[in-house]
Amino acid sequence: MHRLRHCRGLACVFSPSAQSALKLKNNIPLASCSGLVSYCWGSRSSHQGQSSYYYSSWRPRLRYVLMSLVAGTGAVVAYGLHQSERAAAAVPQTVSLPVYTQEEVMKHCSLDKGIWVTYNGDVYDITDFVAIHPGGNRILLAAGGALEPFWSLYAVHRQEHVQEILSGYKVGVLQAEDCKKQEAANLVDPYSTDPPRHPALIVNSLKPFNAEPPPGLLTDSYITPSALFFTRNHLPVPQVDPNKYRLKIEGLPSGTMSLTLNTLKSNFPKYTVIATIQCAGNRRSDMSKVKPVKGLNWGFAAIGNATWSGARLRDVLYHCGFGPEVAAKARHVQFEGLDCDVTGMPYGVSIPLNKALSEEGDVLLAYEMNGEELPADHGYPVRVIVPGVAGARNVKWLGKVVISEVESECHWQQNDYKGFSPGTNWDTVDYKSAPAIQELPVQSAITQPVDGSLVDRRMEEVNVKGYAWSGGGREVVRVDVSVDGGKTWHVAKLRDNGEDEFPAPSPQPGRAWAWKLWEIAIPLPEGAEVLEVVCKAVDSSYNTQPDSVPPIWNLRGVLCNAWHRVKVKVN
Amino acid sequence: MHRLRHCRGLACVFSPSAQSALKLKNNIPLASCSGLVSYCWGSRSSHQGQSSYYYSSWRPRLRYVLMSLVAGTGAVVAYGLHQSERAAAAVPQTVSLPVYTQEEVMKHCSLDKGIWVTYNGDVYDITDFVAIHPGGNRILLAAGGALEPFWSLYAVHRQEHVQEILSGYKVGVLQAEDCKKQEAANLVDPYSTDPPRHPALIVNSLKPFNAEPPPGLLTDSYITPSALFFTRNHLPVPQVDPNKYRLKIEGLPSGTMSLTLNTLKSNFPKYTVIATIQCAGNRRSDMSKVKPVKGLNWGFAAIGNATWSGARLRDVLYHCGFGPEVAAKARHVQFEGLDCDVTGMPYGVSIPLNKALSEEGDVLLAYEMNGEELPADHGYPVRVIVPGVAGARNVKWLGKVVISEVESECHWQQNDYKGFSPGTNWDTVDYKSAPAIQELPVQSAITQPVDGSLVDRRMEEVNVKGYAWSGGGREVVRVDVSVDGGKTWHVAKLRDNGEDEFPAPSPQPGRAWAWKLWEIAIPLPEGAEVLEVVCKAVDSSYNTQPDSVPPIWNLRGVLCNAWHRVKVKVN
Repeated sequence: MHRLRHCRGLACVFSPSAQSALKLKNNIPLASCSGLVSYCWGSRSSHQGQSSYYYSSWRPRLRYVLMSLVAGTGAVVAYGLHQSERAAAAVPQTVSLPVYTQEEVMKHCSLDKGIWVTYNGDVYDITDFVAIHPGGNRILLAAGGALEPFWSLYAVHRQEHVQEILSGYKVGVLQAEDCKKQEAANLVDPYSTDPPRHPALIVNSLKPFNAEPPPGLLTDSYITPSALFFTRNHLPVPQVDPNKYRLKIEGLPSGTMSLTLNTLKSNFPKYTVIATIQCAGNRRSDMSKVKPVKGLNWGFAAIGNATWSGARLRDVLYHCGFGPEVAAKARHVQFEGLDCDVTGMPYGVSIPLNKALSEEGDVLLAYEMNGEELPADHGYPVRVIVPGVAGARNVKWLGKVVISEVESECHWQQNDYKGFSPGTNWDTVDYKSAPAIQELPVQSAITQPVDGSLVDRRMEEVNVKGYAWSGGGREVVRVDVSVDGGKTWHVAKLRDNGEDEFPAPSPQPGRAWAWKLWEIAIPLPEGAEVLEVVCKAVDSSYNTQPDSVPPIWNLRGVLCNAWHRVKVKVN
Repeated sequence: MHRLRHCRGLACVFSPSAQSALKLKNNIPLASCSGLVSYCWGSRSSHQGQSSYYYSSWRPRLRYVLMSLVAGTGAVVAYGLHQSERAAAAVPQTVSLPVYTQEEVMKHCSLDKGIWVTYNGDVYDITDFVAIHPGGNRILLAAGGALEPFWSLYAVHRQEHVQEILSGYKVGVLQAEDCKKQEAANLVDPYSTDPPRHPALIVNSLKPFNAEPPPGLLTDSYITPSALFFTRNHLPVPQVDPNKYRLKIEGLPSGTMSLTLNTLKSNFPKYTVIATIQCAGNRRSDMSKVKPVKGLNWGFAAIGNATWSGARLRDVLYHCGFGPEVAAKARHVQFEGLDCDVTGMPYGVSIPLNKALSEEGDVLLAYEMNGEELPADHGYPVRVIVPGVAGARNVKWLGKVVISEVESECHWQQNDYKGFSPGTNWDTVDYKSAPAIQELPVQSAITQPVDGSLVDRRMEEVNVKGYAWSGGGREVVRVDVSVDGGKTWHVAKLRDNGEDEFPAPSPQPGRAWAWKLWEIAIPLPEGAEVLEVVCKAVDSSYNTQPDSVPPIWNLRGVLCNAWHRVKVKVN
């Protein structure tokens, strides 16, 4: 008896059927599902077709692989399965396999007819794998065609163990002529036009590019230099000609409006905010130490503080005709980037309308970062800056703004960047049950001393430095630091944009967008051989960081804001 | 060598002087300091006058007393010093003491001349005690006069150990004639006109009245019945004649405006919000288990959820002339209650102006609670409701609203209701260093099962219920519950104002003022003999509660929002 699982997070739901192959409900054409992605783990399904690789035979191995595999948005993974056995059900290499034409492969592009793909001249029937693909049914985009363009986009797949999994689904080979055609097409690397990067960056993923600076550099400067600002790209960096650039505004009574870069710069007052942007996955590596999670293995430097200048989104919206008529119905502002996947699907998310419209929300259509044109990696020519809100909503290479009654339907709004209980696993997760991450919780981390370093006992003191920030414009009002693992606490000195003698005036409540740097010299406890240095910040709502990671662990490894801990030896 | 301590929280600062008695800086007359209160602990000072009771002789005892003593705002204390030794320096009972007239006592009303007071026919020189009075220099209000009127107001003093401390300062007796006069005057109990209360309330302090309902009742109803709503009074309940009631609005170009109750009801649209109000000291009893704190020993029911109706503060302010001219300078809105201490000093606090003015702030001048006139204990006839903000800012018996460039100078804004690091003690506390508590952090608690109760193993499940709420309009989006002390977690079902089948529509982001009730049935872990039931809530900013109390402990015992824990036995 096979129990088919209902993937609650999917708009396209796999219908339970004991006899048939997995089907999309109502036979929705696959193409229409391209924007709908979910992660369906551990589905138990059978397929009576020619490649009957039962879930049961995969189970022990998949359990391990799936825990360490990473979603299809270009994330990097530590497979942790270097010596895995080959799939039990894999077709033996010695068996002579049928030869298929590209045309024949293309016919297998639905769950009804089976999902076939080609890779490196071989043909695979991955129908059974669809439901357990770590990247969700985004895999269906490749149905009937070659995997190479997608694996170029999501380079995480280019690993031995992924190919090993694939090999279990091999059903034939592609005829030589079609192989040649594919090879010619596959020569184009979508990342070939990505910009050069600073060599100091620690790269988490090259394609798409995801990197953070060495954390020690963060606290050297209140304003993070653009070249060292963490980069979180979901797709290749788009090439944008500033003269041809148009920002489209939709959902207003006047229809689609189209603004040139020059219009944005000339027709609207220029505002500047200092705002910290943090990736919702910052410190994921702390979470994956507890239990594997899915996502880029960020350290604690996926955060930076910059000066952003541009037109206010609210000014542009009112200019384009936003008024009471729209306000009566609209609730969200959707953003689309100019960065697209191979099917032309752009990066997209949304924010609540009241954040976009509020004078105190300070949402900018920024064309400058730290007083200069936006760098290519940070959204040239225009990035929406949504202060106090997760990096994912600060859409780079902004192409479109849509006023809407509903949230963005895109993957990154609906099926990613959400938080779940530690008790939620890939079998029970329901993406609809959690709100999209907008404001981030209070955060802090220690940039000095470095974990594992030595402190000289003769110094009598240990100097501790770090950053602290909170979402929603809530100012960090205190940072507590401990060198005994949290038994006793000292209050750090906070540093803002001003000088010591002339600190910057406190921002209006709810508009504290920038981080605080902090430092403190703490006397070495007598006789201590190891210091467990810990920090926790408190914001203006007196929210503070949770003590430990396990109770906030979540399967996507987002929102890691437990006390940051560093161990050093005294010698 | 005596080191005099600088009381940084005091506007009137005690000047260091090795030879002289304690002086107010610049010889500010004491009367002008009546509104300035701080807590100056452990001051080391010498006094060369006639009653030279040195700090040093008090130290061991005071250290204990001071930690458990409570500020002068009527709080109740668990002294914990039932068998304390008598003060070393106390005047022996056998010594014949001089007789003073009231007139002579009255001359000792400054630190220069010494601070004398009378109590129960005896005369005391408390000059040395001023700097270490747990209620700060508010004690100076009694200088030259009788303590009785103040001790009626702050009934915490009417305890054996307080009188024992006082006895150490006895210097004489009051002449019989003046004693009689005082007795006649002392017959008036300022609390005699307080309203009747519901007998189910658990009383923390009778004068002023501070009480909370049995926590189990909280989750019986989404709307807390008014009679069971926790009451936090700082002073006697004022008697207000609705016909003579006037709400004064100050700080606007038109000068002081005066609005009748009828004007508030008739001239402004009536708005209704469902808002949870929580005392910043809710769950203080959890904090005092870690280490003694100063304040009412609240359980976890100093919170309630009610329907509030009235005029919007912003409508009233705009009606009274608020405009750009004022907006350019003003930053705060101060509130004064009609409840006053014996000197006529009203209860007073303030909130940021942008909260008061924002359409989305929903600040009300409420004249109804749960659809009826405000009860006397909850602010009749008008209470300002500041949703999402600590109870202390929701001023009852509202008498005055002042638009201002500065925060309220009152004790409750400047020297109370602030949060500090666990490492901050009464020697190091600097009230100026911390912001006044406004928005409260995310909170939740378990109302069922009751701590220490029994669960029948045959039931197979344990039903857990509770409440969850967060400040600043941040909606509670999830409550995690554990029965194994936080090792594994289950997601509770949230309940709002709607029916199960028709839940209330989600409020606009940032306007979720009401709590969520929650419940869950969790299977009994096999073989478990004791369950440690734990809950933690997550709000829309994905802030969550800290794991444990010690790292958020603070000397005033406010902001206790660590996981709530309940232990039950399985039988």
